[in-house]
Amino acid sequence: MQIPQFSDIITAHDLIKPYIHNTPVLSSKLINGFAETEIFFKCENFQKAGAFKFRGAINSVLSLSDNDKKNGVAAHSSGNHAGALALAANMSGIKASIVMPENAPDVKKAATKSYGAEITFCKPTLEARESTLEEIVKKTGAKVIHPYDYFQTICGAGTAAIEFLEEKPEIGVLITPVGGGGLLSGSAISAKALKPQIEVIGAEPEGADDAKRSLEAGEIIPSINPNTICDGLLTSLGKLNFEIIKSKVDDILTTNDKEILYSMKLIYERMKIIIEPSCAVALAIVIKNKEKFKGKKVGIIVSGGNVDLSKINF
Amino acid sequence: MQIPQFSDIITAHDLIKPYIHNTPVLSSKLINGFAETEIFFKCENFQKAGAFKFRGAINSVLSLSDNDKKNGVAAHSSGNHAGALALAANMSGIKASIVMPENAPDVKKAATKSYGAEITFCKPTLEARESTLEEIVKKTGAKVIHPYDYFQTICGAGTAAIEFLEEKPEIGVLITPVGGGGLLSGSAISAKALKPQIEVIGAEPEGADDAKRSLEAGEIIPSINPNTICDGLLTSLGKLNFEIIKSKVDDILTTNDKEILYSMKLIYERMKIIIEPSCAVALAIVIKNKEKFKGKKVGIIVSGGNVDLSKINF
Repeated sequence: MQIPQFSDIITAHDLIKPYIHNTPVLSSKLINGFAETEIFFKCENFQKAGAFKFRGAINSVLSLSDNDKKNGVAAHSSGNHAGALALAANMSGIKASIVMPENAPDVKKAATKSYGAEITFCKPTLEARESTLEEIVKKTGAKVIHPYDYFQTICGAGTAAIEFLEEKPEIGVLITPVGGGGLLSGSAISAKALKPQIEVIGAEPEGADDAKRSLEAGEIIPSINPNTICDGLLTSLGKLNFEIIKSKVDDILTTNDKEILYSMKLIYERMKIIIEPSCAVALAIVIKNKEKFKGKKVGIIVSGGNVDLSKINF
Repeated sequence: MQIPQFSDIITAHDLIKPYIHNTPVLSSKLINGFAETEIFFKCENFQKAGAFKFRGAINSVLSLSDNDKKNGVAAHSSGNHAGALALAANMSGIKASIVMPENAPDVKKAATKSYGAEITFCKPTLEARESTLEEIVKKTGAKVIHPYDYFQTICGAGTAAIEFLEEKPEIGVLITPVGGGGLLSGSAISAKALKPQIEVIGAEPEGADDAKRSLEAGEIIPSINPNTICDGLLTSLGKLNFEIIKSKVDDILTTNDKEILYSMKLIYERMKIIIEPSCAVALAIVIKNKEKFKGKKVGIIVSGGNVDLSKINF
């Protein structure tokens, strides 16, 4: 298991810069007032394919050897990784085969299709997703790009924190949501390398708090029957991600769906931007723990904006 | 009736620059693909108080004499002007008295209140709004700031087009929504002064097409029982606005609510920004009239983002 170093993330950043957006950092006086601290939002909802996932996907695709590229790439994903990998493959002129569970959000199915990927639908279980992917790989020889538990995916994900701290070096606490752990682990490597005294915190919904429990237990505790509106945070931690999180992340904090929805509405109404429920967890945690964050400058990575609007009910 | 000149708008811009945001210009490859032309969006939904209206409100307040400021400002408004004037007054340290109809959107009531204005609610008719305002003015001596039919409001509104054409001088067609005509008239003065060959178009919902009918008839035809989801575009044209629109605006185009909602969803899903239905009219018109706009570079002023999210049903 090769752990990415900060130098690997720098290499990734140099490689992917021409393909990604250096997304804007926004803030809102009114939200600062609510949270009683200064918060900066790195808006990866404005990233290509609508999520930070594109950073990892394009880095993974560009890092393949010509021989590996020949048969294209493949993955199973219900969400943002599907669209991100499809677009990355499309931009690199190679084929993408994506396995999606039948119940994936329509908006994500449509995006993946619009980027030219070949989609195979399967039953919404991890077993069905894995066996369907295996069949496709057997048939096509495609290279599997894991959505988070993969060296180059983590290196790509870690590039957002570099841009963020370059623009706002005053950030004292960096918070990212944590699902599989790709964004959190990549961000932690970059942040601790650039600013050793920075605090790095993972934000997790109470209904899917496997990362918190894993960190406490010192071993990966899989997410079983997670129950939260944060559809991007249902997965269990990856092995590579957990190794990094164990050594680099200061804490995992949790909050409930009601508070997440409240923070999401606050961001929609006050900042006028569309974010996924998964991104609102971080703000909800800051609002919930005012004393902890008071006087610190907080940086939140908004992971994505691919929302099925018909399902949102404020 | 004193018609604003471009030099008046320049003066306004110099005056208000320290108080406003120079809002970002965004674009989306995917939306360009749909519309089959290149479109730039000037995002006044990110303006202070969430709408371009703040430009006119702050300009009006800053332009008052010290004597006029003494008794504060007043207006009746169901929407963005209320919040904008409340904030402008607050920033200038003067009082704002706002008359709002009882059925104004909750989000706009809350915003107006949060900016410290004194709100008086009235029945949702023009007569009730005007008589309530009159009483307040009699009692307080406050200076009435009209939301669109007012010299300094128009000058403030016209400043967005200056920033827009400075950033994107290649724009060949400028489109703004038209309700009372403040944004359209101010934008037309600036745009035609900066680039005489530019086309300036007003975008209006079919269910409230009084501006189109007025321009055709050569006289103001009031809006009677307007019926559209665009709650910001229900008012009739102002007199001063109509004079300017008659001489500076090339055309008013209309479209229906179904197409407006489709364009609004496109902007939410693809650009990840929150806009009011009123702003989606312009994009809907470009999509509906592809042949007309093909090959031209289109600039759209997104007028605001104050949406009652609980009422949006995609």
